[in-house]
Amino acid sequence: MATLYHFPFCANSRFIRLVLAEMGLEPSLVEERPWDRRDAFLLINPAGTTPVLMEQGGLVVPGGGIIAEYLDETRGLGLTGRRLMPDHPAERVEVRRLMDWFLVKFDAEVTGYLVTEKIAKRFMTSATGGGPPDMNAIRAARTNVRYHLKYIGYLMARRRWIAGDHLTYADLAAAAHLSCVDYLGDVPWDEDETARDWYARVKSRPSFRALLADRVAGMPPAGHYADLDF
Amino acid sequence: MATLYHFPFCANSRFIRLVLAEMGLEPSLVEERPWDRRDAFLLINPAGTTPVLMEQGGLVVPGGGIIAEYLDETRGLGLTGRRLMPDHPAERVEVRRLMDWFLVKFDAEVTGYLVTEKIAKRFMTSATGGGPPDMNAIRAARTNVRYHLKYIGYLMARRRWIAGDHLTYADLAAAAHLSCVDYLGDVPWDEDETARDWYARVKSRPSFRALLADRVAGMPPAGHYADLDF
Repeated sequence: MATLYHFPFCANSRFIRLVLAEMGLEPSLVEERPWDRRDAFLLINPAGTTPVLMEQGGLVVPGGGIIAEYLDETRGLGLTGRRLMPDHPAERVEVRRLMDWFLVKFDAEVTGYLVTEKIAKRFMTSATGGGPPDMNAIRAARTNVRYHLKYIGYLMARRRWIAGDHLTYADLAAAAHLSCVDYLGDVPWDEDETARDWYARVKSRPSFRALLADRVAGMPPAGHYADLDF
Repeated sequence: MATLYHFPFCANSRFIRLVLAEMGLEPSLVEERPWDRRDAFLLINPAGTTPVLMEQGGLVVPGGGIIAEYLDETRGLGLTGRRLMPDHPAERVEVRRLMDWFLVKFDAEVTGYLVTEKIAKRFMTSATGGGPPDMNAIRAARTNVRYHLKYIGYLMARRRWIAGDHLTYADLAAAAHLSCVDYLGDVPWDEDETARDWYARVKSRPSFRALLADRVAGMPPAGHYADLDF
């Protein structure tokens, strides 16, 4: 059994939890708070970031996108019909483009700000960056999320799933990030019904259940967070 | 013939120029200044970033890491012995980890700051963010580059190339980023001889020549920039 080092509100960790659940794999989960910069964790991932997958044999695979590629290469072929990466190079480009869009760009423009300011800072000491949330960062994220939501709506008006005809890594990456923002009540769902319908579909999958059960101590989720019909 | 939309001092564009040259491919080059947010460019890459590879048939492949994966999938197998991605999943993890380290992490901590503050701002209008360089950003980048250089030295004390026994995408990604920082005179080469020796080796490859000929108008490179023996 593999081990996943994750933080429950690290969206890229959530992405890998979704991927593993879709593949029918059950890792043991170790919670890591990356800002603690624990020595033993830095030894396995010098970048100091979650998620990190460790195989039973000791192989270390760090980073959402890299774990996704690795899992497809080592487990993907066994998943006929449920594989999360397409075969054709042009379709792979589109899945990777959108996976990267959410894991890197959306993270830098939305999730990173919100999770740091509203969640991580509650757990950090003042030496590691704790303190009251920076309202400018939160406002920037709330502005940015609107155009990302519109972009999802734009794509979903033309496609069955975010990257094409099938559920892929792109849907799971986007939904993982939105789930963190949604916990905090910062997704303006009423601005894009098409995007909301897509999210309701992904959120209803069994792979999503564990994410919907996560809670931040002392900070309940937005009222509709775990509702499948919101 | 494919077309590469690039900016000469965008390090991720340089990475792809190196990759194409190592593969013996000669794209036509179109210079793009991403901060202009040109409508026609946003249509082909909504993220608005360079590099973007466009195949003769019209397929658009955006982003350094994604182009590298795509080129390996479509041209890699013809490059026996000179392929830039290894075959084995564990070795692929290491190449991707370090490719990502430089294309994303080093970019966020070093190159992004320096190229924006010292180069891009010269070309931007005040409406698009132009103006005098932010010395705090430059100082942060100069501090950060030291630990990255040390990390390269650490790896190169144990390996022939950055990710293992062979030249891979990881070397080209790292060298592309260092080449931008080196143009600006901000690599403290005397702090790590092992890292410098590795860079001299990559810089001596024929694929590097075009990069060493690039110039910013009105801003000559650091004296040793194009010296193969520096």
